[in-house]
Amino acid sequence: MPAALTWNRYGKSSIRLVKVRRGTTQHEIVDLTIDVALEGAFEKVYTDADNSACLATDTMKNTVYALAKDDPLDHAEAFASRLAEYFSQKPGVTLVTIGSAEHPWSRLGAHAFISAGREEWTTAIARTKGRTSIAAGLRGLVALKTADSAFSGFPRDRYTTLPETRDRILATSMTATWNYADGFGDFGQREDVRAALLNTFATHKSESVQHTLYAMGEAALHACDGIVDIHLTMPNRHHLLVELAPFGADNQNEIFVATEQPYGLIEGRISRRQT
Amino acid sequence: MPAALTWNRYGKSSIRLVKVRRGTTQHEIVDLTIDVALEGAFEKVYTDADNSACLATDTMKNTVYALAKDDPLDHAEAFASRLAEYFSQKPGVTLVTIGSAEHPWSRLGAHAFISAGREEWTTAIARTKGRTSIAAGLRGLVALKTADSAFSGFPRDRYTTLPETRDRILATSMTATWNYADGFGDFGQREDVRAALLNTFATHKSESVQHTLYAMGEAALHACDGIVDIHLTMPNRHHLLVELAPFGADNQNEIFVATEQPYGLIEGRISRRQT
Amino acid sequence: MPAALTWNRYGKSSIRLVKVRRGTTQHEIVDLTIDVALEGAFEKVYTDADNSACLATDTMKNTVYALAKDDPLDHAEAFASRLAEYFSQKPGVTLVTIGSAEHPWSRLGAHAFISAGREEWTTAIARTKGRTSIAAGLRGLVALKTADSAFSGFPRDRYTTLPETRDRILATSMTATWNYADGFGDFGQREDVRAALLNTFATHKSESVQHTLYAMGEAALHACDGIVDIHLTMPNRHHLLVELAPFGADNQNEIFVATEQPYGLIEGRISRRQT
Amino acid sequence: MPAALTWNRYGKSSIRLVKVRRGTTQHEIVDLTIDVALEGAFEKVYTDADNSACLATDTMKNTVYALAKDDPLDHAEAFASRLAEYFSQKPGVTLVTIGSAEHPWSRLGAHAFISAGREEWTTAIARTKGRTSIAAGLRGLVALKTADSAFSGFPRDRYTTLPETRDRILATSMTATWNYADGFGDFGQREDVRAALLNTFATHKSESVQHTLYAMGEAALHACDGIVDIHLTMPNRHHLLVELAPFGADNQNEIFVATEQPYGLIEGRISRRQT
Repeated sequence: MPAALTWNRYGKSSIRLVKVRRGTTQHEIVDLTIDVALEGAFEKVYTDADNSACLATDTMKNTVYALAKDDPLDHAEAFASRLAEYFSQKPGVTLVTIGSAEHPWSRLGAHAFISAGREEWTTAIARTKGRTSIAAGLRGLVALKTADSAFSGFPRDRYTTLPETRDRILATSMTATWNYADGFGDFGQREDVRAALLNTFATHKSESVQHTLYAMGEAALHACDGIVDIHLTMPNRHHLLVELAPFGADNQNEIFVATEQPYGLIEGRISRRQT
Repeated sequence: MPAALTWNRYGKSSIRLVKVRRGTTQHEIVDLTIDVALEGAFEKVYTDADNSACLATDTMKNTVYALAKDDPLDHAEAFASRLAEYFSQKPGVTLVTIGSAEHPWSRLGAHAFISAGREEWTTAIARTKGRTSIAAGLRGLVALKTADSAFSGFPRDRYTTLPETRDRILATSMTATWNYADGFGDFGQREDVRAALLNTFATHKSESVQHTLYAMGEAALHACDGIVDIHLTMPNRHHLLVELAPFGADNQNEIFVATEQPYGLIEGRISRRQT
Repeated sequence: MPAALTWNRYGKSSIRLVKVRRGTTQHEIVDLTIDVALEGAFEKVYTDADNSACLATDTMKNTVYALAKDDPLDHAEAFASRLAEYFSQKPGVTLVTIGSAEHPWSRLGAHAFISAGREEWTTAIARTKGRTSIAAGLRGLVALKTADSAFSGFPRDRYTTLPETRDRILATSMTATWNYADGFGDFGQREDVRAALLNTFATHKSESVQHTLYAMGEAALHACDGIVDIHLTMPNRHHLLVELAPFGADNQNEIFVATEQPYGLIEGRISRRQT
Repeated sequence: MPAALTWNRYGKSSIRLVKVRRGTTQHEIVDLTIDVALEGAFEKVYTDADNSACLATDTMKNTVYALAKDDPLDHAEAFASRLAEYFSQKPGVTLVTIGSAEHPWSRLGAHAFISAGREEWTTAIARTKGRTSIAAGLRGLVALKTADSAFSGFPRDRYTTLPETRDRILATSMTATWNYADGFGDFGQREDVRAALLNTFATHKSESVQHTLYAMGEAALHACDGIVDIHLTMPNRHHLLVELAPFGADNQNEIFVATEQPYGLIEGRISRRQT
């Protein structure tokens, strides 16, 4: 057959890595998406079905997590360089390329963070029979906390495998919508509502997403007298602990994989009580 | 505090489920994204941090996979109804809602399928110094095979955990770009190139994505004399076997979770040899 | 300052072009997204604020539409080559690159088309108090018709500028959800519902999206006795006629720009009447 | 036919509105996406092809822009209420719903703004033959300026319709990648590079995107001695002046529609000169 493999490259893309650095007074997080690609003497994988030189892309992924355990991750550039050096020593490799995207987080508290994300303010107006009802809200407000989040005491049945935990990452992308009382017009107070939601998220001793959602709703009602009720939707953006034991390492709540699917979805409406 | 929880709901969203029905002469696949949500007597989870009634959303996910094992999955409606009935018997539940989205696949062969996806034809023209070079291609061509795909014989190092397999799902979203020889003008032949790529994908005894990519490139060159070379990019859309052993079930390559991150990324250029 | 511009390129991206070829018995459509980029003697635009050689990217866009008027658009490769040749003759240009993505449409009728898009089947189950209600549906079903669509006779106020038309492109991405009667179980009939929706879309003499939506709903109820009601959501994916008069050309409903924002959004529920 | 229209709603969605408030010392911007929907006596549009009561959704869009001209837009809630009141007075309307999403911008200067967007830091490492090359960068950095941006003096041919302007909105989503000199290791300087890019964007007297891109590149090289060269990609996110003359209003660079397709795409590489 008059064909030849004239170039090739392979690797693992979109390796999601979150590292928590647990200092004495406050935590820091690093949130990266990493791509690893190799070029070299891999022609026979393509042409002869000979995998003896083909480092599995799954192994590349494991390597990233294992090396992240021991790296301070002060700079993505330095960690990526270390990865490149490591993979360059594998048999047959002539060129390693490492790409990384770092997702910035801003500090919200000693153990809580906020991501710029795609936050938007929302409004929903309904007018019928001469009456206008006004709701305001926000969506895409992404926050994460690395302490004071637990989930335990839940029932176990034959399909339950989740271990109890007293220390997990809690991350969410909040959607909140609140209804204003008739005649309310001080719409600038949405900033106070947002601050109340965030402060509560950051400082709450969370026993579940539900538990924190309710506390946030209470705080919102407290922050703005004009709010009649608030509806909160909080997906649980699971950050799973990476199992490093097979590599002889211990993962003390330091190395996580951020996942998108599936996700928990927690909702609630908190209303001002008639007194 | 003058607040009350006046409505609540929680559950697991975006549970990705792929089931392969392995008939004697051909396979069938069902590809679903499922959402489970419960309403009922769950107020204390929110207000009192009492998780004793809170079925974990992780358990919901496990339940979906375990019940999918025994369900024929002939109709998403029937399977979703069965899920709804199951969850309605859990303590405190008053309303179960199950949503599902079914992603259609068309048959490409006895064990191969194609998804409409977002396939597009592409063209890239470069003109400089009075000369025009013409490339054509396609992207977003999603295909999957449930037989004749293996990955074994790869090297193992201290970070390797991937088991060898002689039978896995192979799924990809192809991007192909091929350069036409100067003066070529029968652009309708792109249909022949596409057919060659798909037929090879469907029938190849694959030892790796690389192995199949090369065979596809060879077939494309064979299908159209006007092609000088072809560049193929094939992400490995991993379908992971769900571990059902904790639930006392055996997973004979039937129940998979389709994942998006991370993914293998395999590339190669196959060129017509000068003779 | 010790800096120099060592490479540059500029152009217009994502030019959306839809051409309708109006044959005697049936129509054909070509749907392209085109990118134009130029390299050449454009340094002074960057370094000296001298725009005298800078062909405006808006002019590039106009040129694509004007040349599309006279091109048969039989092959994207040939049209893109023609564009490349045209732009290569502009002052200063040394390299033209033209990229195009062609979005495939399948024939649904003499003047109607369907796009693979991201169509999915949906299910929504609710179970409460021992009763299960079952809804099925589809979403992302993209269809377009190039004849038998009008919009006229609507009221005009001080903010109305839209001209009346008796011949326009009608395109939509349908979402349909229908409720089954209690005890219905022949879920395979969803195919009949889909066929009824599509056939009606293709053949209806449309006076508005609303008008066609209602006819589609009626047809769905007719196609499946088990359906109690159907909810249809049909965004109006506007295809705007490109004004070619400034270029001395006449646009006889041939050259359109497909737009995404804003869009009309039409909804309705059609229910089986008690008899 | 035993069918009836039992509910209906229609309107215009995703109306993009940007208003610039031009104060004496600094500007303010409001960036909204608005949805308008009406319910009422519109059955005959669906069932009888009678459009005499069907306010065109295109008219709704025009109305939003016209009313935005006279509204201070201090609060989206108030403006949306005013829209709701306006549309509630149209014949047949019984319920108006107005939704809005407000995209926040932070101040970067008296006439310049930055949007949180999806900004990320990037790294690209290549290691071959024992040598590591390190590039860093950022992407998704969205900025906009409402003054000091012009585009004039460009050539006019038979396809040119764009008017010259000495005052336009300039908005972009920057991607920058810069190469570090061998041995450079002070990666924290990326913050200085970012600041230089943004400050230059905010204060530059722009005669074109190209002109500003080059100035930004120069500033980046100035800000960090370790940078060898920088590649900048700046899409021109066109903000088009809405024509209000048909409604008897004058648009003094106040009311814009933000568009996504097509867009100009400007690129350049600025390198440190050998001295």
